Amino acid sequence: MNIEIFTTGGTIDKLYFDALSEYQIGSPQVLRVLKDVGVAGVFRVTPLMRKDSLDITDEDRTQIVEAVRSSHADKVIITHGTDTMVDTGRALAGIKGKTIVLVGAMQPAGLRLSDAEFNIGFAWAAVQTLSEGVYVAMNGRILDPQHARKNRDAHRFEVSD
Amino acid sequence: MNIEIFTTGGTIDKLYFDALSEYQIGSPQVLRVLKDVGVAGVFRVTPLMRKDSLDITDEDRTQIVEAVRSSHADKVIITHGTDTMVDTGRALAGIKGKTIVLVGAMQPAGLRLSDAEFNIGFAWAAVQTLSEGVYVAMNGRILDPQHARKNRDAHRFEVSD
Amino acid sequence: MNIEIFTTGGTIDKLYFDALSEYQIGSPQVLRVLKDVGVAGVFRVTPLMRKDSLDITDEDRTQIVEAVRSSHADKVIITHGTDTMVDTGRALAGIKGKTIVLVGAMQPAGLRLSDAEFNIGFAWAAVQTLSEGVYVAMNGRILDPQHARKNRDAHRFEVSD
Amino acid sequence: MNIEIFTTGGTIDKLYFDALSEYQIGSPQVLRVLKDVGVAGVFRVTPLMRKDSLDITDEDRTQIVEAVRSSHADKVIITHGTDTMVDTGRALAGIKGKTIVLVGAMQPAGLRLSDAEFNIGFAWAAVQTLSEGVYVAMNGRILDPQHARKNRDAHRFEVSD
Repeated sequence: MNIEIFTTGGTIDKLYFDALSEYQIGSPQVLRVLKDVGVAGVFRVTPLMRKDSLDITDEDRTQIVEAVRSSHADKVIITHGTDTMVDTGRALAGIKGKTIVLVGAMQPAGLRLSDAEFNIGFAWAAVQTLSEGVYVAMNGRILDPQHARKNRDAHRFEVSD
Repeated sequence: MNIEIFTTGGTIDKLYFDALSEYQIGSPQVLRVLKDVGVAGVFRVTPLMRKDSLDITDEDRTQIVEAVRSSHADKVIITHGTDTMVDTGRALAGIKGKTIVLVGAMQPAGLRLSDAEFNIGFAWAAVQTLSEGVYVAMNGRILDPQHARKNRDAHRFEVSD
Repeated sequence: MNIEIFTTGGTIDKLYFDALSEYQIGSPQVLRVLKDVGVAGVFRVTPLMRKDSLDITDEDRTQIVEAVRSSHADKVIITHGTDTMVDTGRALAGIKGKTIVLVGAMQPAGLRLSDAEFNIGFAWAAVQTLSEGVYVAMNGRILDPQHARKNRDAHRFEVSD
Repeated sequence: MNIEIFTTGGTIDKLYFDALSEYQIGSPQVLRVLKDVGVAGVFRVTPLMRKDSLDITDEDRTQIVEAVRSSHADKVIITHGTDTMVDTGRALAGIKGKTIVLVGAMQPAGLRLSDAEFNIGFAWAAVQTLSEGVYVAMNGRILDPQHARKNRDAHRFEVSD
């Protein structure tokens, strides 16, 4: 098993900073989780940016696509804010020969109650078992970014037309 | 033992709301902590407001002082945001016959790593053991609000002149 | 998605009981995790027994096999103690038309640091993506119970001959 | 503030070891808690033993008394298993010039839900505010070891005759 993980920020990595009385994006939590859990296998975590996904620009998205395309791994996980995860998934559509899984969290990994560890475990299995393609892995579902959207009111990802 | 607890908001009660991608003040965490811990004794929790302490106005402060003054308990804990905790402590200075302890947290109680539970335990002992007066209980120290300030850069309360 | 979950006990469900100063097996944690995370989809949790897997007898194993065989779901997760998870996996080998995933944890779900949430997320994806058969899902790996063993000294599952 | 902390084991420090499928006493959690919380002030943590308090012998108790007597600090916290905390408290009765607080936990500090952090905070205030003497600090109460007992069925400390 050889899994490459790119991190881009998002809620999953948000920390609370008292000095500013607000959340900011901290270091990638996916690395802590994978270490705490003691996963078997070879993996690499490469931080690309630390952004709320609403702030990810076309240039950022191009950088993400290039990073994935250049990776030697055929299994790639991208941690990403949920608001534009689907957009980045669509931008990755052209890449062949890789299984690419986008994952994030509705609640920061630093909270007592967070979906982060479950979601990372979910993505970890998805990237190993799915055939090549790009997938959004959220709420325990595997979605096609061409037909997925985040329903902000329901705090859920769902199938769109 | 008869302890009255007034809650006013502050970091200790902050939750993360994904829909807005920011922290907001939720329900009082002090009640959850006291229940989880299983403290002996009779206590009552009364929420007064849910405010970041930078937003607490003179009117709010008057309301807090009135609530404490009207309480039948002679041991009072106030959970409060840290930024103006000292100011509220000074406003409470005139009240006689009560031990009044102000406490808060640098990190929300909902985080995996938070000073909230330690601080509530600390205040819980302080209010039982200190003589009448007003105290700020933070960082494991008992401070006189007349001679205390929050050092924002050091994330600490310290003695001022 | 229609997932049936059978619980049998094991470390994942262990709680600490002060009165006895030891761990005992409590109620199924998988239900709490799936609710906390807010997974989409229809699932059912059915507790079969609360046993340390070293205490699971042939009769117990027959009961587990019967429960899986009788289930209307074609996706089945079994939470199970790690010591004899492989044995139960082998006992399930004859069942056709279902994807069956055995999962557990090295550290109880009630601990601050536990692999339980990651592992449940991992199993949740595995059961949706794998073809029919029986699988052990531990340490971020999907293993064939015919060729898997728990290495107690390394706290890991590994491929055996 | 100069606080000396002696650790003796007990539930507060219990960890879960999968290899043995049971809890054993690990390294002192009080140090981790005090660091996580960021307490102000000078303190020292000295581990004396790692024992379930039912296994603490007269010789162990003599060692604890000697350690406290020899300490240069006039504020001493002892973390201790709850079952014989009262007995150790009585053994310490002869020591003059020091405030000595015994504290422990009903649930290990490593659990998601534990009274450990609250209790340590509680003891941290008690040792600073109480006059010289020996105290048991549990369940948010300060008890005299001459008139305290653990009620195992109620999971509580209470006043005895």
